[in-house]
Amino acid sequence: MINLDTLNLDKVDPAGLYHDIANIGKNLYEGWESGYKLPVPSHYVKCKKIVFTGMGGSGLAARLVISLTKKSSRLPIQIVSDYTLPNYVDNETLLVAISYSGSTEETLETFIEGYKRGARLIAFGTGGKLEELARKYQVPFFRHQQNICKQPRMTISRHLGAMLAILNKLGATEIDSRNILKTVQILENTYTSSWGFNIPSENNLAKKIAKEAFDKIPVIWAAEHLDEVAHCYKSLFNENAKTMSYYEPLPEMNHKSLAGSEFPKPLIRNIYHIFLASQFTHPQNQKRVKITAEFYKKRKYATEVVLFNEADSPLTEIILSLSLGAFVSFYLASLYGIDPTPIEAISDFKEKLNG
Amino acid sequence: MINLDTLNLDKVDPAGLYHDIANIGKNLYEGWESGYKLPVPSHYVKCKKIVFTGMGGSGLAARLVISLTKKSSRLPIQIVSDYTLPNYVDNETLLVAISYSGSTEETLETFIEGYKRGARLIAFGTGGKLEELARKYQVPFFRHQQNICKQPRMTISRHLGAMLAILNKLGATEIDSRNILKTVQILENTYTSSWGFNIPSENNLAKKIAKEAFDKIPVIWAAEHLDEVAHCYKSLFNENAKTMSYYEPLPEMNHKSLAGSEFPKPLIRNIYHIFLASQFTHPQNQKRVKITAEFYKKRKYATEVVLFNEADSPLTEIILSLSLGAFVSFYLASLYGIDPTPIEAISDFKEKLNG
Repeated sequence: MINLDTLNLDKVDPAGLYHDIANIGKNLYEGWESGYKLPVPSHYVKCKKIVFTGMGGSGLAARLVISLTKKSSRLPIQIVSDYTLPNYVDNETLLVAISYSGSTEETLETFIEGYKRGARLIAFGTGGKLEELARKYQVPFFRHQQNICKQPRMTISRHLGAMLAILNKLGATEIDSRNILKTVQILENTYTSSWGFNIPSENNLAKKIAKEAFDKIPVIWAAEHLDEVAHCYKSLFNENAKTMSYYEPLPEMNHKSLAGSEFPKPLIRNIYHIFLASQFTHPQNQKRVKITAEFYKKRKYATEVVLFNEADSPLTEIILSLSLGAFVSFYLASLYGIDPTPIEAISDFKEKLNG
Repeated sequence: MINLDTLNLDKVDPAGLYHDIANIGKNLYEGWESGYKLPVPSHYVKCKKIVFTGMGGSGLAARLVISLTKKSSRLPIQIVSDYTLPNYVDNETLLVAISYSGSTEETLETFIEGYKRGARLIAFGTGGKLEELARKYQVPFFRHQQNICKQPRMTISRHLGAMLAILNKLGATEIDSRNILKTVQILENTYTSSWGFNIPSENNLAKKIAKEAFDKIPVIWAAEHLDEVAHCYKSLFNENAKTMSYYEPLPEMNHKSLAGSEFPKPLIRNIYHIFLASQFTHPQNQKRVKITAEFYKKRKYATEVVLFNEADSPLTEIILSLSLGAFVSFYLASLYGIDPTPIEAISDFKEKLNG
């Protein structure tokens, strides 16, 4: 196995994806500040439903917003990752479309349809057709600078910060600026001392998890505000490390997947169950994480339970877990001997789809 | 490998789960008729949001309702599979709680909370604490006879029929009785001639898929109204065949999972990608199914594309696909030499959770 403590960063990561990972905290704060500055028409405040549309990496931040606010939101809030909007999207709906490239066909189709229905529109991206439409429709466009590796998935914390700021301005959420600042501070302390490139394997949780995940399928479990973080892990493992990965929301998958733990017997040694534990979920969900991990361990599966004692809020748990997962995906790519940035399989697929 | 053409049904399936599978069509129709007969207070018609709560097998029918109606519904409609209701559940919300046993702790907690918020309640089940609460709150209780194998997952088509009938009565959906009848008729013709126990392997699609799935992890892909059918496959494979299984909604997972198809290389031969194709989805989603299957085939994965030319509506596609998946899960259990009915892993887990 490749030694993670002697990697040449310029060689294994020519596009600089590592630096985008290291910037997750900084980008969260910058996104938050920029989001507050985005002018949003005053009649947007009175919306009755919130719908995000976005695909793949461009949709990840919206998923985290939903995870964080689904319990507290006074409005129904959901994401559509498809070509078609639900019928109930109307002129009382805030529709936020996100496409990093500005050319994602599903997102453009829903944005145009949202306009026809009189929805209150906001667009996120770096330019392209989506920006043109936003200009034509005279609706807010949240532009951000390209990130270092130029991959949509690495916009996640910047978009998260911006979306929370915008929803705050509209009165849909109540996130405190101090919570954002504190989160960034805790993250900086944690990752630089625990997961960074220079921390040797024996003290580095991210490297440890990456080594265990090598030649296994990582399956990530989490509940409530962390369930979409588990989804992000799948996404980052797929796209950065080019490995299969799945996620299991709790408590739901206790009612299904546990039964499906017997077969195929030869693959038990190739599955790695990772649990994102929490101090802030329902007490029974905290217990479920513990007992589910024991369940799999007893059945000879590789398991890992991650809990951040230093987290002081659900948002902090989201950001710490996200950062850890991003570092793991980076190290796992290195173990597989591949560049984490390009995703040729998806580019080839898109060509075939529209060729 | 066990010969599926010489199974002794009484021996491999003492609880009679096979008969519940064979009754999927009949149960759909009976559920539809009973649902229409359930008295529902007239003020329920004016609800503004629909929320289902239910876990595992008890939530499957609600997932199919959402899949079928998400495009056409004039109201936001979603399922909560957790202990806590979103803040926006209020006295304008129709809250439908489903618990086969009547004792599922997550569902009871949300039902009680829904009552406190003045939501318009309906409960589904066979009795237990949930029925007691429904009686106490004086709200409709949809009771149904135990199914043959007494497993929540096999209530799926009966509950689906009943829920569609109730939503129809409330004006939230517009399903035609003839569509239900036609669906049942097409299903009966198809399964008895193609997937039944007596149809030999060489002409039996369900047996063919089960044999290919043996010692592999089945991963099911589908778009739009079929995406929750893919979820049901995972559930039935987990619970009936006791095998690991995952599902990938389209088009979203094109943006993620394709990148994650390179590693772990030794496991490529152990993954089986099953695609539920459709005549009724967005043309690009139809194309995506085809190209995604080709993508995996080219990379040496086992693949299967299922399309029902005989289906004449999205509902018919849902029911045909569901029935096929249920038969596959049954045959796969037989290949693994296990009884499909008991799910001891989940019962043991529940004891630990509350012990």
